[in-house]
This record gives sequence, structure tokens and C-alpha cells, in this order.
Amino acid sequence: MGQLTLTIFNEFIHEQKDDLVKKIYPKGMHETIAEYMRKEPGFQVKTATLEMPDHGLKEEVLNSTDVLMWWGHIAHDQVRDEIVDRVQARVLDGMGLIVMHSGHFSKIFRRLMGTSCGLCWREAAERERLWVLNPNHPITQGLGPYIELPNAEMYGEQFDIPDPDELLFISWFEGGEVFRSGAVWHRGKGKIFYFRPGHESYPIFHNTEVLKVLTNAVRWAKFSGNSETKGIGNCFHIKEPLETLSEKGHE
Amino acid sequence: MGQLTLTIFNEFIHEQKDDLVKKIYPKGMHETIAEYMRKEPGFQVKTATLEMPDHGLKEEVLNSTDVLMWWGHIAHDQVRDEIVDRVQARVLDGMGLIVMHSGHFSKIFRRLMGTSCGLCWREAAERERLWVLNPNHPITQGLGPYIELPNAEMYGEQFDIPDPDELLFISWFEGGEVFRSGAVWHRGKGKIFYFRPGHESYPIFHNTEVLKVLTNAVRWAKFSGNSETKGIGNCFHIKEPLETLSEKGHE
Amino acid sequence: MGQLTLTIFNEFIHEQKDDLVKKIYPKGMHETIAEYMRKEPGFQVKTATLEMPDHGLKEEVLNSTDVLMWWGHIAHDQVRDEIVDRVQARVLDGMGLIVMHSGHFSKIFRRLMGTSCGLCWREAAERERLWVLNPNHPITQGLGPYIELPNAEMYGEQFDIPDPDELLFISWFEGGEVFRSGAVWHRGKGKIFYFRPGHESYPIFHNTEVLKVLTNAVRWAKFSGNSETKGIGNCFHIKEPLETLSEKGHE
Amino acid sequence: MGQLTLTIFNEFIHEQKDDLVKKIYPKGMHETIAEYMRKEPGFQVKTATLEMPDHGLKEEVLNSTDVLMWWGHIAHDQVRDEIVDRVQARVLDGMGLIVMHSGHFSKIFRRLMGTSCGLCWREAAERERLWVLNPNHPITQGLGPYIELPNAEMYGEQFDIPDPDELLFISWFEGGEVFRSGAVWHRGKGKIFYFRPGHESYPIFHNTEVLKVLTNAVRWAKFSGNSETKGIGNCFHIKEPLETLSEKGHE
Repeated sequence: MGQLTLTIFNEFIHEQKDDLVKKIYPKGMHETIAEYMRKEPGFQVKTATLEMPDHGLKEEVLNSTDVLMWWGHIAHDQVRDEIVDRVQARVLDGMGLIVMHSGHFSKIFRRLMGTSCGLCWREAAERERLWVLNPNHPITQGLGPYIELPNAEMYGEQFDIPDPDELLFISWFEGGEVFRSGAVWHRGKGKIFYFRPGHESYPIFHNTEVLKVLTNAVRWAKFSGNSETKGIGNCFHIKEPLETLSEKGHE
Repeated sequence: MGQLTLTIFNEFIHEQKDDLVKKIYPKGMHETIAEYMRKEPGFQVKTATLEMPDHGLKEEVLNSTDVLMWWGHIAHDQVRDEIVDRVQARVLDGMGLIVMHSGHFSKIFRRLMGTSCGLCWREAAERERLWVLNPNHPITQGLGPYIELPNAEMYGEQFDIPDPDELLFISWFEGGEVFRSGAVWHRGKGKIFYFRPGHESYPIFHNTEVLKVLTNAVRWAKFSGNSETKGIGNCFHIKEPLETLSEKGHE
Repeated sequence: MGQLTLTIFNEFIHEQKDDLVKKIYPKGMHETIAEYMRKEPGFQVKTATLEMPDHGLKEEVLNSTDVLMWWGHIAHDQVRDEIVDRVQARVLDGMGLIVMHSGHFSKIFRRLMGTSCGLCWREAAERERLWVLNPNHPITQGLGPYIELPNAEMYGEQFDIPDPDELLFISWFEGGEVFRSGAVWHRGKGKIFYFRPGHESYPIFHNTEVLKVLTNAVRWAKFSGNSETKGIGNCFHIKEPLETLSEKGHE
Repeated sequence: MGQLTLTIFNEFIHEQKDDLVKKIYPKGMHETIAEYMRKEPGFQVKTATLEMPDHGLKEEVLNSTDVLMWWGHIAHDQVRDEIVDRVQARVLDGMGLIVMHSGHFSKIFRRLMGTSCGLCWREAAERERLWVLNPNHPITQGLGPYIELPNAEMYGEQFDIPDPDELLFISWFEGGEVFRSGAVWHRGKGKIFYFRPGHESYPIFHNTEVLKVLTNAVRWAKFSGNSETKGIGNCFHIKEPLETLSEKGHE
């Protein structure tokens, strides 16, 4: 249970404009999540929002962040490309990234996936059941066979993502759809987890099972390798061969 | 062996500036490949180069292209972002893409992969042997256990790519490195194949085994699904549930 | 649309003992499927049942079979191990295998997967909707976004299978579960497709969409590689190195 | 760094019959590895050999084993099928398994893979270089870009294994071949790691980098999930649906 620095980004717009959302998340979803995470042993927690300079994601913040959580919905296009470049570079260099719910359409997730990240959706406060596929993954520890959410926005296939490195959750929706609702990828030296729950108008970030998954994911996403490793994120010229070459070369 | 339209993009710079390269590919690598491909039953072949308006990749060209081949090296940053956007959109909508050799660092490949696509390299005219991992894939048909190239630029791991949907070739290099030299991904409705061989200063696009692989790949990469399929490349609102919802919804 | 030889194995017990099943499949499920498949251009279709000598799967039958379909349910343990060995060897040597529904628990599927292939189940004639994940795969051609079956036995996660090489269908069930209901693997030179629909007491093999998927799968599963390829299914001694070794070898 | 119980199986034949091997591993390879592992914090280490009753793998031993390491070469067929069944059942129930070198052809590895696990080989004391593909995986921690072994038996593709869940190492051999020399799979609740180094006639299990990888792998392979999880390794009847079914069921 080592130390880690977690930064939680939230566009923080619904909570300031919509009374229903404000009631559920008075200080914003980022603060609800942060309050929970601050109790985890070894976690240093920061928050960042769209309205802050550089959206709260200055170089020095990102450079000291082990894992970044991302929530956005109606203001994806207000995130500056320069900051997206910066976040992508840090992920490829080993920062973990956890993308929540409508963050599927964020610039940073689309950038890292290379696809549209489109999906089908419906907002009808329907029941969702997230089935666990692999109980032996760090992210699913402490769960039963499924998580049930009484009221959720529906997301349905086809979810336009690259095949995940591992699919961890599949959701069932009352209205008739299914969705790959929890999946992991690695990109460069970084680990990425997408987790579907989290609509602003439902108290999903008060759900302890959802928070449990997110906590597990933060621990999992922290870079654990050799940070000196070359060749990931750069192009290197190896002038001298490791072996002696034969004399048959062209010219 | 259905009909298909293939467009071959080449930045076409080395061949106009460097006498050695010009000697190997007098009309450009794209023409060498195109001449071979034009003999394939059912292939309609076009070419496109950097210097053409829109790099030869106008909307109407891409819209009628089933598979696009891409070669670039020293002028990746001269490819306009607007054209990269256009190519990406077409791939996600079903156009096949075959990226060759130094195209690993093209904007379009990096865009679709989400990673840096960095690698290690050395130019020392060394021997390369590409081992076939799956002889039952459409792309490896007609090959023996490996392809041997007498003089090649070396590309070495770590190749910063997402884990491939399938790894088809691993290269051995005389100088001591290995490389994942042939791999496939699907992104949106499109299929992508990266194939390592093809340095401008070696006659690799005259090699019949390399051309065989590329031909197989073109056939494989053509979209074969239902082009009407929704949900890939777009976000759809499904207002009405497929099932009757219970009366338990929030509000 | 080349030629291929398809063999359909059915344990053929329910249809002889249970009046409901007999009414749906008077000559057995294998014959219902075979009648459909015989109309496909280029298909040579044979059938095999448990009660036949060697379960209808003698060496000469398997050696001339390109693709084997498998249905079993209550008599998995009556399939002789020697025949399972034989089928496995042929799959590893390139014969395609399509396993249907309760065939998940057959000896041959468990043998090729290495896992228990366990799952959860319920027989309550509930609605199933199979969502297509990749519309650009040969197996999903001609389908819309999903297949709906009005009455199906439920199979639920966790399905104890190795991560598929590609997941093609996820099922939604009226009773609240999800299931990875269509997936592909390659093992040795052979291709394997598992497809969930097909309970004996529902007329699922009369459903044209289910039959469409199975037909697509048969075409996809036929071996298309170089049958001479070594190293798959055997251990080869390569006495002479391809390269000259240095003089540093162990003393 | 929790507690774990590691059992190391070695067929232990070469070391008793061959003077060269005996010189390198006087007490057997299992003891060389065990001596190293016993110094790891939290490791309880046992050993097991072919000649022991039940090959040292009685029910009570396996039931208290978190991770099993396996080395075999010339006596694979002397391992009793009943013991293989027992080990497979424990892996599917969560015991980690690490298979070394010639263990690729062991009954237990072939059982869990479902393939022949064949490969090409040559014994010529040639140089091997194992390239690390993902420096951010628990198993590759503490390594540089590659491990170099001065004298190794060659293993070459095509290695007849299922596509790994993740490929961690690719080997380069002096004689011209490549090999997927480190890979992971999960089967049931268990994690499996295959690692190529370890021929009996070279002092490879005295190499600290090889031992480092094996130690990392032992920690990684220990089951960390919810041991109560159902549906993996068994078939469960869920009689009552989670949702109310409509009245449309079959008559």
C-alpha cells in the first residue's frame, strides 16, 4: 500500500447550474470522490476543474500525479488541446488514467483510444447490473458477482473502443441493452481504466461499491515499472549493433 | 476475389532527391507497388502523394477507397491535420489502412493507435528474418515459416503500440534485436495492418514475398460488414427502451 | 465461396426421447441444420451422432472434414476420450470447430479451452438479445445491431473461458444476466467459434438469423493457410542454425 | 508483500544421472531455486519431485499452495494423469502456476493451453537476448530493456500456444530464431506465467535476472480475488431470475 498522488479532474458545470445535481453533489463530484479517497492509506488527493488556469493541470501538477481521474460531459470541447497533449504525454510516460462515465467522449480518452468512443444512450433512470468477469483482477477485489445500481443512465453497444486488454465488467440494463462497462488498456507506460457508472443526476459516486472499484483502480493504475526504460514514448537511434554484423551489407 | 479500390499514398520525397533511392524506385515507391497491385484480379489502384492538392486524398477519393496504403518518412509533419482527420474518419467508417515501415511515425498511425509509436532503429544494411506466428491468417497465406531480407534497416523493441488484436510477424535482426513487425488492429469499422519492411534505400518493394503479404493484407482490410451498422463512429440517442421499464425510476 | 466439407455432430438423444423436442426437430437438430447448410453453395454436408461407430467421427471422416459443428448436452461423458483426442488433433491441424449452446460443457470444448467452461443457467423461456460487437467480422455479416430470440434458456456470467481472441456477441437476458455468447479462438492451426443459441426445447435452429451466423462461421472456420507449415502441432529439431554461431559456446 | 506458500516441482532426473548437470545443480534445480526464494520476505517454500508419492503434490499440499512452479523435461509422461487433473483443478480455483523452459511440453501446461505447445529447438550453447515488451508489468520490474544469456538452448517459433493475455518477453537467438519467451494467461481463477529460460545443462537458475523475473512472477501469480466467487470452475443453476419475467414464455 505505497504512497501515491491522485488528481481528480471534473469539468464541474452541472453542479453549479442544475439544482438537482447540486443537491446530490454540493461541492461537485470531484469533492465527493476526493473526500472518500483522502481516507485511503497513502493517498495524496488533489482536484482540478475546467475553470482553473490550465484546467488545474499545469505541468508541475501532472508531473507529480501518479493517477488522474477524469469526469466531463457537456464541455469536452472547452478542454484546450494543449492540455490534452500534456495529459497524453504523461499517460504514455506512466501516469495512470481513470475515465468515468461520460468521460468516454472526452478529448483525452478519444485521443488515447484512437476511435470515436461513440455509444448508444438513454436517460430513463433504469436499473443497471454490472457483472464481474474476472474476480482475480486487482480492480474487482472485494466485489460479489455483480454491482447493482437502481437508477442509471443507459449506455449501449456498439461502444466504439479498441478491444480492451482486459474486459472486467459487462452491464445489463433494464431497457434491453448491454455494455462493456469496465475495461483496461495500457498505452505507452501508462495504464487506463474506463468505468461506466457516474451520471451527474444520480448519486452514484456515493455508492460504496462504485467507490471501491475506483479505489482499487487507482492503486492498480499507479506506474510500478522502471521509469528509466527507454523506447516507450520516444524514438531512439541505436548506432552500434549488439552483435557483430557480417560483411554482406549493401553498397 | 471481389472488386476493390486501393489508394497508395507515398510522401514521395526521397525518390526525387536521392539518387540511390531514385535508382531503386524511379517513379516512386507508390508506383512500384501500384504496378504490382494493378495485376491483381479486381483491384482498381490509385496513387496519392504529399505534393498533390489535399495530398491526393480529397473527400471523393477517400469515399471511394476501400483500402489505403501509407508510406511516409521525413515529412510526416507536412501532412495537414485536416487530412489526417479525414482519413481517420474514413478508417473508423470502414476503410482499411495498411501502414508500411517508417509510416509507424505518421500522424495517421499515431492518431489511430493513441501512442507515440516510438521504437529503436539502426541503419546498417543488416539481415532481417520475419517469422510467421499464425499461418492460418488471411495475411500470411502463401508464405513459408519466415521471410528473409538480406539488407534492412533495423527496428527494435520497445515498439510503443497498443497490444495488437493479433500479432502475425516477429522480426529477428542480425544486430541483436527483435521487433513486432506485422500486426493487426481494428478501430471503429476499419481494419489496420502495420507491416515493417520497406526502407527507401533497399529494394524491398521489389521483393515478391513482401508484395504477397501486402496483397493479402489489402484483400483482408476491405470492409466486409454491414455498412449501415449504427453505433460505430457516432453517438446515438435511443429514446425508447426495447423493454418495458418498471415504475421505480427516480424523481 | 470455395468448396468445403462440413460435418455436424449431435448427440441426438433428446429428440428420440422427448416428445416436445421431437416435434421441433423430428429428424434431430443435426438434420435441421444440415438441410439448411446443404443449400449453401460449395458445402458438402455430413452428419454424425453419438450412437454411430466412433460417434460417426472415424479418422477418414475427420481427415476429410474442413469444419466440424458440435452439439451435446446430457451425454458429454459418453463421448469416448479416444475420439476427443482425435478431434483435438484435427483442430490443432487446421479443422475448424463450431461449438453450439450446451456444447460448452463438451469434452472437446473443455479440452481446447483448458478451463471448466462452467456458467450459470436457468430454463425459463425468457427473452434473449444477442448484441453484435464487431459488424466487420466475417461471422457477423448480414446482421443488424442484434438478434432477438423470444424464448431461450439463460446462460450467465461468469463463463469460465479463456479470454477470447475476439468477442463478437454479448447476450442480454430478460431475467437480469449477461453472457459472452459468441466468441472466437484459434488453437494450433484451427479456428474455433462458440455460439450460445440452440437449446433443444426451443426452435432456435429454425431461426434464420441464427442459421446465418452459423453459415458465416462455417465459411470463416475453414483452414485457409499453408497446410505444410511446420512447428504447429509438433516439436521440431532444427539441428543447423540459420546463422553462423560465434565461438563462445559452453565448453 | 503478503505471505505466500510456493511449491517448486522438478522432475529431478537429469541432476541425478548426468554429471554436468549435477555439477551445476548438485541438489537439483528445485533446490537452487528454493534457496533463492526462501530469502524473499513472506515466502514459505516447499519442493516436490517426480519420485515422491503423488509426485509430492498431495491434495493437502496443493490446497495450501498459492503458487506452483513447474520444471520437467524427459519424464512428462511419467506424471500421473490423476495428479495433472488435481493440479488443473487447483489452478482453475486460483492457484498460480509458473511453467519453466521444457515444462512447455508438460501435461499440465498442454492441458491448460489446449494446444500441442510444440516449438522448434536446437542445443548449441548460443546467445539469447530476452527483450522486455512492457516495463510496467509486475513481472518485469527491476529489469533493463533486455536480459542476456550467454549460452542457451534455442526455442523458436512457431510456438503452438493460445494467444497470450499479455506477451512480456520476446527472445532473440544467435542462430537466427525468435521466440515468445515470457507470456501470461488466466484460466479460471488462476494466473499462469510461462518463462523460457532454464535448460538443465546451463547455469541459468543461478542468473539473478532470471531469478528476479521468477520472484516477481510468484508474487504476481498469487490469487488476490474473492475466493467465494461463484461461476468459475462450476456450473450453477440460478433458479430464480433477478428480474420479473414477462408472461410470454413458451407454452
